Amino acid sequence: MKLKLRPLVAAAMTVAALASAATWAMSPNNEPISPLVAHKVTNPAMVELGKKLWFDPRLSKSGFISCNSCHNLSMGGSDNLKTSIGHNWAEGPINSPTVLNSSLNVAQFWDGRAANLKEQAGGPIANPMEMAFTHELAVDMLNSIPGYLGEFKQVFKKDKIDIDQVTDAIAAFEETLVTPNSRFDKWLKGDQKALSKDELEGYKLFRDSGCVACHNGTAVGGNSFQRMGVVEAYKTNNPAEGRVAVTGTDADRFNFKVPTLRNVELTYPYFHDGAADTLSEAVDTMGRIQLGKKFTPQENAKIVAFLKTLTGDQPQLTMPILPPSSDKTPRPQPFAKK
Amino acid sequence: MKLKLRPLVAAAMTVAALASAATWAMSPNNEPISPLVAHKVTNPAMVELGKKLWFDPRLSKSGFISCNSCHNLSMGGSDNLKTSIGHNWAEGPINSPTVLNSSLNVAQFWDGRAANLKEQAGGPIANPMEMAFTHELAVDMLNSIPGYLGEFKQVFKKDKIDIDQVTDAIAAFEETLVTPNSRFDKWLKGDQKALSKDELEGYKLFRDSGCVACHNGTAVGGNSFQRMGVVEAYKTNNPAEGRVAVTGTDADRFNFKVPTLRNVELTYPYFHDGAADTLSEAVDTMGRIQLGKKFTPQENAKIVAFLKTLTGDQPQLTMPILPPSSDKTPRPQPFAKK
Repeated sequence: MKLKLRPLVAAAMTVAALASAATWAMSPNNEPISPLVAHKVTNPAMVELGKKLWFDPRLSKSGFISCNSCHNLSMGGSDNLKTSIGHNWAEGPINSPTVLNSSLNVAQFWDGRAANLKEQAGGPIANPMEMAFTHELAVDMLNSIPGYLGEFKQVFKKDKIDIDQVTDAIAAFEETLVTPNSRFDKWLKGDQKALSKDELEGYKLFRDSGCVACHNGTAVGGNSFQRMGVVEAYKTNNPAEGRVAVTGTDADRFNFKVPTLRNVELTYPYFHDGAADTLSEAVDTMGRIQLGKKFTPQENAKIVAFLKTLTGDQPQLTMPILPPSSDKTPRPQPFAKK
Repeated sequence: MKLKLRPLVAAAMTVAALASAATWAMSPNNEPISPLVAHKVTNPAMVELGKKLWFDPRLSKSGFISCNSCHNLSMGGSDNLKTSIGHNWAEGPINSPTVLNSSLNVAQFWDGRAANLKEQAGGPIANPMEMAFTHELAVDMLNSIPGYLGEFKQVFKKDKIDIDQVTDAIAAFEETLVTPNSRFDKWLKGDQKALSKDELEGYKLFRDSGCVACHNGTAVGGNSFQRMGVVEAYKTNNPAEGRVAVTGTDADRFNFKVPTLRNVELTYPYFHDGAADTLSEAVDTMGRIQLGKKFTPQENAKIVAFLKTLTGDQPQLTMPILPPSSDKTPRPQPFAKK
């Protein structure tokens, strides 16, 4: 395995990936993937507030779109659409990544333009193609709702709600969305019966073919930016160019954040353009354009079987009851005025 | 009170309303409103399945709109919009009524065109302005998902899923959405401290001014069709004509199902056109056009205070985890093909 991997590693690994490579030796079975650890909540009141904001469509101009609309926690933290639907049915430019385990990502968005979850959380609210609101209007709305005022004050000890508190609370909630106890993690921890023969062979194919060069670490990805199309160019009509939009460095063109493969069974369709409807298609394309490898149907099926063992415990959430608007709360504006 | 009510009762009460009037004598304090009784689940597996369907946006053409989009259980079972947003951002024709306590309604929709919850549940799925799907496509989609196939078979003991099973399960879930234990119900049951002085005075105003002629019974409404604009015509740009669309009887023009006032604090904006943003405005308009009465600001505030005591225990729901689509599941079509 090491012999096969080395040239690719040397060529493509970033500092982040190398850092994660250093942890390989520490994982229970000396594997390049480590088990997920459940998140420990330190500030339950902030998490609960963040959950309310997560589900509150009043953070959008229309009053119709919430964080959960495109990162649906009933559907693997994604919307299962090629690209998302935004305000006024705008066709989004890129596939909505899962929020599950996103706290483990090296950065947020496909191009990593947000350093962390807090920074990310402010993006969609103000994006005219997504929630189409402004931070100022969102904060005004929240400050007009007695139920929110009380809860924010309890958590942040301030008299006025500001956008920093909003994004802090949303990020605190998102940090809880970790999915431990997948069958693969049980296997990593020593339960030999957790995987079937095919699943285990699928994992060995995944590891020894070089997929782990990018999909490694606790999240099986998410920890580096890599070129989409190493061996062969990726053909797409999607205009996104990835990391170059952030760094301005030409070498970063078509570099995207490697998506986590945790819960990948639930987060179809795949790739930044959502072009691959099925895991089978995604594995085939990745083998071809990233590794120059054509997996046989049997190999493909085994890798897919392994990938499905990465589905962990999904968040068990009680739907929040949102504090009602007051008479002073500005009403949503879903439609253009006539 | 009886003297004041009688002429209006004679003029406007339907058979359903009269039937509910007959129960007045049985209520704990001899009041025209009875406490809500929590729903007893007899088939938990069907309810759990119905909950999944309720939250599943794959029942829409776009894969984006679920039952919960317009009857949001975090927001009083409504969307808090004047009229709803449907497929392709269609502007709905009418205000989305709350699903909470809807099992108590004499019929479903503002014009009562569905006899019961099961019949209602099929409507939005196939409405091109709402979920824009067809029953056939919805059923095909469900039949392609192993997780659903197993669960439907367990509940309905049949090999194939059909639309009858789908609407049965959704209705079974909706029947659980009852909101007991409001402060007003506690007062009805004898807890004299459950209401403040203003709230109690508000209730007496509500009762003795004649509001209870239509808003009575367990749901404080929902049990009759009544004319919108008894004393004075209701001015609106909304073209809906109410019950006449179902009966064809000219006398039913502008007759609408009386909405429940349970949880009315959460279900703004009000009326079939969603024209009243606040409870204060709704009370003012109702007094004027239904009763020929101008409430003073003090009276209005007291009635509003009473109405807010009708908020009951909101459903405590664990978000369902939806079974993932299979490779054979047709993918949603949110956007027109290019």
